[in-house]
Amino acid sequence: MLTGYHVAILGGDARQIEIIRKLNEWNATVYKAGFDQLNESFTEAMDLDLDSDHVSKLDAIILPVPGTDESGNIDGIFTNRLIHLSEEWLKKTPAHCRIFTGITNDYLTGLAKKVNRSLHPLMDRDDVAIYNSIPTVEGTLMLAIQHTDFTIHSSKLVILGLGRVGMTLARVFNHMGADVSVGVRSSKNKARVHEMGLKALDMNQLKTEDLHCDLLINTVPKLVVDQDVIKQLPSHALIIDLASKPGGTDFSFAEKRGIRAMLAPGLPGIVAPKTAGRIIADVLAGILLEEGRKEKSDD
Amino acid sequence: MLTGYHVAILGGDARQIEIIRKLNEWNATVYKAGFDQLNESFTEAMDLDLDSDHVSKLDAIILPVPGTDESGNIDGIFTNRLIHLSEEWLKKTPAHCRIFTGITNDYLTGLAKKVNRSLHPLMDRDDVAIYNSIPTVEGTLMLAIQHTDFTIHSSKLVILGLGRVGMTLARVFNHMGADVSVGVRSSKNKARVHEMGLKALDMNQLKTEDLHCDLLINTVPKLVVDQDVIKQLPSHALIIDLASKPGGTDFSFAEKRGIRAMLAPGLPGIVAPKTAGRIIADVLAGILLEEGRKEKSDD
Repeated sequence: MLTGYHVAILGGDARQIEIIRKLNEWNATVYKAGFDQLNESFTEAMDLDLDSDHVSKLDAIILPVPGTDESGNIDGIFTNRLIHLSEEWLKKTPAHCRIFTGITNDYLTGLAKKVNRSLHPLMDRDDVAIYNSIPTVEGTLMLAIQHTDFTIHSSKLVILGLGRVGMTLARVFNHMGADVSVGVRSSKNKARVHEMGLKALDMNQLKTEDLHCDLLINTVPKLVVDQDVIKQLPSHALIIDLASKPGGTDFSFAEKRGIRAMLAPGLPGIVAPKTAGRIIADVLAGILLEEGRKEKSDD
Repeated sequence: MLTGYHVAILGGDARQIEIIRKLNEWNATVYKAGFDQLNESFTEAMDLDLDSDHVSKLDAIILPVPGTDESGNIDGIFTNRLIHLSEEWLKKTPAHCRIFTGITNDYLTGLAKKVNRSLHPLMDRDDVAIYNSIPTVEGTLMLAIQHTDFTIHSSKLVILGLGRVGMTLARVFNHMGADVSVGVRSSKNKARVHEMGLKALDMNQLKTEDLHCDLLINTVPKLVVDQDVIKQLPSHALIIDLASKPGGTDFSFAEKRGIRAMLAPGLPGIVAPKTAGRIIADVLAGILLEEGRKEKSDD
């Protein structure tokens, strides 16, 4: 239980609604800012006046998954206003106040350091990334089914990368009946792909591998789907790039060649906001309960 | 090879394009009617003048998957005109001319009998139904991912029926990580569900079974998702009904209870017209080659 915990949710999307619900179940005191356009019947969190004394009681601040922009502004789909996360305001929080975000950037990392508040980029955690890979892969599957005129079953699929998302992709698309090859760099991952009954491609020399496929899914946040790779694809092929912006695909070359390519970030929030919110809430609660109490008593 | 075979494609959708392509590969002489709005560069079939002598050479007529309506009209997405399949016209075809359709109705069955031409409702065949279950289930998965805010993984799923589509549904959704129960009537199917590691529900007394689930998929073309079943569903549940029209769901009661329910027929033609067309073309070629030649020589 999070009784006595004061948590502020600043901006975000439908995932935040699920986080608020979960924090309430665990009996935390929840404040919200950036939800002014939400249905009025939503009373599970109090409106946070950013200038009020409540700020000095906050044990945690929860930012949206994308965090802030490089100017420190926080976006929210339930408001037209931007919330600015400033040094001055953060200093009003107690010293033990933790800042949770999905991902961080130079502004946010720098700010947290300056005001000496601990910053937790949740998407950096292996557990969150693995849980999140489930809705990511379901969203990828949805896109693949929507944007092709053939079945995934019996189609030839190349996955680049066997990381936290690549592993889930390989398992699910294999079970769907696709003919799956996975591009990997290490001998360890080559062995794993073999163990899974799939075909390994050597990403250290992708140019020389057979990449003729119906569907190419990239998870590597580097330019790996380059001109040499795209040249090998048949005209009906579809590229889905799951790597964080700007992706790992030469999109302009793909367009020139008439190969459809789509960057698809943030799928969990789109296809399964409820599950995605729960994933964050569960990890959040774990951190607040286990480490949080300890640090708070150290204050 | 189908050299010397004269085949007419009357109306239909993108699946017909794939059928025409395949028939061409096998060297058949292909005529088309009901494709006047198709791109002019599509020259893989000759336009069929319904009053011409070509009609007397036809070895096979291929109707769209839905066949004709009860007045004998054939629909096509590439034309604004209806094609009427009349007794008078069919009599102009040679006696051995076969009529292929997806499904049949009283009009079509009666007409074929009257003119003494063999009628082949392809969707009645087990092989076609099983091949078609692949795009049907991919389409169902797409709808389920699109229309829920949770992941299929870890969701509670009830499938009604373990027929040709139900079996594919059970396998795929189980592999997606859903918690799958399957409603069956026979002890044989109960055993099969058990063997698959899933939970069997007794459809002979569905009322007394635990149907609390996130997703209910029906494949039974009888009113099985009735008021008693719908009353057990939580408000966030989604019903997807794959049974042929009018489905097996009390849709008006579902609406009254605020439970979302969708009838989703014809998914293969929507999500994978290329694969769905190939399935039909392959079976068609098999019939024309194996049985067709024999009968033709008997004429």
